[in-house]
Amino acid sequence: MPHKALAAKPLEPRDPDWEAKVRASFARQKVMALIGAELTALAPGRCEIRLPFRDDLTQQNGFFHAGITSTIVDSAGGYAGFTLMPPNTDVLTVEFKLNLLAPADGELLIAEGQVLKPGKNLIIARGEVYAVKNGSVTHCATMQQTLMTMHGKEKT
Amino acid sequence: MPHKALAAKPLEPRDPDWEAKVRASFARQKVMALIGAELTALAPGRCEIRLPFRDDLTQQNGFFHAGITSTIVDSAGGYAGFTLMPPNTDVLTVEFKLNLLAPADGELLIAEGQVLKPGKNLIIARGEVYAVKNGSVTHCATMQQTLMTMHGKEKT
Amino acid sequence: MPHKALAAKPLEPRDPDWEAKVRASFARQKVMALIGAELTALAPGRCEIRLPFRDDLTQQNGFFHAGITSTIVDSAGGYAGFTLMPPNTDVLTVEFKLNLLAPADGELLIAEGQVLKPGKNLIIARGEVYAVKNGSVTHCATMQQTLMTMHGKEKT
Amino acid sequence: MPHKALAAKPLEPRDPDWEAKVRASFARQKVMALIGAELTALAPGRCEIRLPFRDDLTQQNGFFHAGITSTIVDSAGGYAGFTLMPPNTDVLTVEFKLNLLAPADGELLIAEGQVLKPGKNLIIARGEVYAVKNGSVTHCATMQQTLMTMHGKEKT
Repeated sequence: MPHKALAAKPLEPRDPDWEAKVRASFARQKVMALIGAELTALAPGRCEIRLPFRDDLTQQNGFFHAGITSTIVDSAGGYAGFTLMPPNTDVLTVEFKLNLLAPADGELLIAEGQVLKPGKNLIIARGEVYAVKNGSVTHCATMQQTLMTMHGKEKT
Repeated sequence: MPHKALAAKPLEPRDPDWEAKVRASFARQKVMALIGAELTALAPGRCEIRLPFRDDLTQQNGFFHAGITSTIVDSAGGYAGFTLMPPNTDVLTVEFKLNLLAPADGELLIAEGQVLKPGKNLIIARGEVYAVKNGSVTHCATMQQTLMTMHGKEKT
Repeated sequence: MPHKALAAKPLEPRDPDWEAKVRASFARQKVMALIGAELTALAPGRCEIRLPFRDDLTQQNGFFHAGITSTIVDSAGGYAGFTLMPPNTDVLTVEFKLNLLAPADGELLIAEGQVLKPGKNLIIARGEVYAVKNGSVTHCATMQQTLMTMHGKEKT
Repeated sequence: MPHKALAAKPLEPRDPDWEAKVRASFARQKVMALIGAELTALAPGRCEIRLPFRDDLTQQNGFFHAGITSTIVDSAGGYAGFTLMPPNTDVLTVEFKLNLLAPADGELLIAEGQVLKPGKNLIIARGEVYAVKNGSVTHCATMQQTLMTMHGKEKT
């Protein structure tokens, strides 16, 4: 069973300051404040962002807009990757692909980002988004993402 | 030169009411009002959305967040497809893939959606996003997208 | 922990003849014989295909070509989906996205397809590809895929 | 009209030996000989590969298998990118996403790769695949692809 063997490989941060660095960067993403998203969990190679429903985040049928789903899952994947990057770097999304599995219908969206392959220059991550409605959980989107380590950047 | 032969095929709306229908649906996407996006051009198989810069739409480096870029280009592609759908249907994004080509840095983002293949159930669209900075245009993102026609929906 | 709750949902075939149907379709994919791929495991919502190394399957550096990796993982995902489709249908790949995580270097490739969301018309699947080299396993590719159920098709 | 302005930007090779280098690499892709694919056009930022129909390249309905379509369009995009890379580098596909627009049904497939964004480390390319049947051309697949320049590689 190859998958389990691989999942066992621990993901090690290369920057002792990884947690503060990621939290500071998240705090600088002003769009997160605009939509009301919160960074709710962080570990090496993992990041969770939660977003409570608001009427002004919706598409034509009253569900969360796919772009809003993208916004939190792109950041969840990106910060999952950023936890593993060395000091004096920044994270850049090269591309992502999002499948929408079900309407993002509920009082809360939860986006989970997880690193699949922590390369030196490129990091491949995956993201899942869940909609919570009356306590019931629906898997509403799945993402595959390529991130790039930008070297030589000061943490400003 | 195969590409030109194909590009010549005209895209014909199947709903005489296509323009009003698309504009009404866009008006119901409350997230567009939140971020300040406007539907600036519409034609059968094409849609353009523009978004002026605001500080609260940014990521950690002060550029438009990739999720905001996604929000307008997903809608631009989706409404490009919706212009070609028959009456009593709705449009659903199945999936999209976005490559970020350059920082979304500027005073204005322009997202152009265009139908590539207008199938009966599935429509394949493409989206391009341009950043305008001091009048200079940079191609900052490109998207490939699959849309689904939802049949039997009332226009509510 | 939302993910586990969802993973618990069993995938039920809608065609009692699912296994024979999938094996017959695989046998008709002549490209599988050309490259030497074998269907090595099948269950509702899952499919595994194995491909031994051959020198004539390689790219410029002597590894399996990404297109060959695509060939087996597209079929593994497609047949994972086909196990869940009703009688008198066929499976069609709408699109897939493949990230190459490591060189496909080894004496054997193993592609695993798994259904993530078994919709009535669209099925979303995921694929993983592993390269086995001297008994050591490397996760070399990951795929996200959209499949369509083609209704009204005879099994020919 | 931003798109035209951008398309006007010429793509310049950074290696005077670009054509011989690409042709030599293509010749080393043994899978191309296996399936019968030919490199039929090459220019800075562009590459065309053609593949005549053979019965042993098919899926269950007798059309070209999507994996075979992927094989030629991945190489067409990859070599389009490689034409622009500096000396002593190699090209690596990071990821690609392929939408299948129509059955790959015909006596010939034509894959066209074209560079969209020639970055220093990453190149973004697009690929189109056309099926020719009795002289009639159908656009059967479209691809979006990320390539990486591998530095410090000898041309072996």
